[in-house]
Amino acid sequence: MSSLPDSLVKLIDILSDFPGIGKKTAERMAFFILKTKKVWATDLSNTLLKVKNNIHECPICNNISEITPCKICCDESRDKTIICLVEDTIDLITFEKTGFYNGQYHILGGLLSPLDGIGPENLNINSLEDRIDSIDELIIGTNPSSEGETTALYISDLFKNKNIKISRLAKGIPVGGDLEYTDEATLVSALEGRREI
Amino acid sequence: MSSLPDSLVKLIDILSDFPGIGKKTAERMAFFILKTKKVWATDLSNTLLKVKNNIHECPICNNISEITPCKICCDESRDKTIICLVEDTIDLITFEKTGFYNGQYHILGGLLSPLDGIGPENLNINSLEDRIDSIDELIIGTNPSSEGETTALYISDLFKNKNIKISRLAKGIPVGGDLEYTDEATLVSALEGRREI
Repeated sequence: MSSLPDSLVKLIDILSDFPGIGKKTAERMAFFILKTKKVWATDLSNTLLKVKNNIHECPICNNISEITPCKICCDESRDKTIICLVEDTIDLITFEKTGFYNGQYHILGGLLSPLDGIGPENLNINSLEDRIDSIDELIIGTNPSSEGETTALYISDLFKNKNIKISRLAKGIPVGGDLEYTDEATLVSALEGRREI
Repeated sequence: MSSLPDSLVKLIDILSDFPGIGKKTAERMAFFILKTKKVWATDLSNTLLKVKNNIHECPICNNISEITPCKICCDESRDKTIICLVEDTIDLITFEKTGFYNGQYHILGGLLSPLDGIGPENLNINSLEDRIDSIDELIIGTNPSSEGETTALYISDLFKNKNIKISRLAKGIPVGGDLEYTDEATLVSALEGRREI
């Protein structure tokens, strides 16, 4: 690679740091940058710095935001009496994409994982406690993994004496799924959670 | 996506412009940038601009370079009597990776393609003519595609009266290939190009 300009080699190196981007893809991206219009590269360069400099955590829900509080916490049209507790911002976006949920969120910033040394003190639980008295329902929207379940159990236990409804996302067969290929644990959950029609 | 900060949405949009990078991967990349150290993002931002501002074409071989002439044209240890003609810089890099070739290069900047309106005047052929009298051999290293073959034929015809050897890359079965899965055209080329052992 010594035949390439040093700055291009460095660019390829940096681009390879992205998750899921190998050397070959990084090379293709670097050559794309080389061939593209200068204004595009300047735009990318500026936006990069803007993202790093202007985005911070919302002091209420810990969502990422450029404004304080974040867009969702500011939105007066959203239901203030319900909070959906999620692991991180990506999960929040996933919920938002459905367009179905119109309440507040609270970002935990991780899941309980004693083996990795992540305890309640490492998660945004204190800030959730501050909000809990002002709501009617807390939806625990963590993943149905062992860490997600442990965290859900811990949270529901923590707030069981509060006068609010605590709910958990339904577990069952995914829409469009096939019974034949559904694992036992999911099928048991689907049976346990069966609803009258 | 309106729940995301505007600058992050813009960053995802820009990153989606890369070839082979879809919306989902662009999102993952944007979140990686958000979580990574600030110095990494600054480095990427600066390198981007450096690549766009400092890299130009070598006036001799049309390779991309930060210096004039390029590293390869400057390298006194390389054979000056042989030129390998390639379509673009990516092909040059592919040759360089083998570490086998030690001559000069000339970048055509494309291939003849009458249907796309690309004629000899659109390629770096004049600058090749200026170099042709100082060499002993021209290796035509274009792809074995129809455009590559047409270009090779045109170039070899153009310089047939010059007192130099004009060669073409061998076509045949790739190393490690399987006869059973080799297409007819390749097999014919392999037969035609057979060498005594």
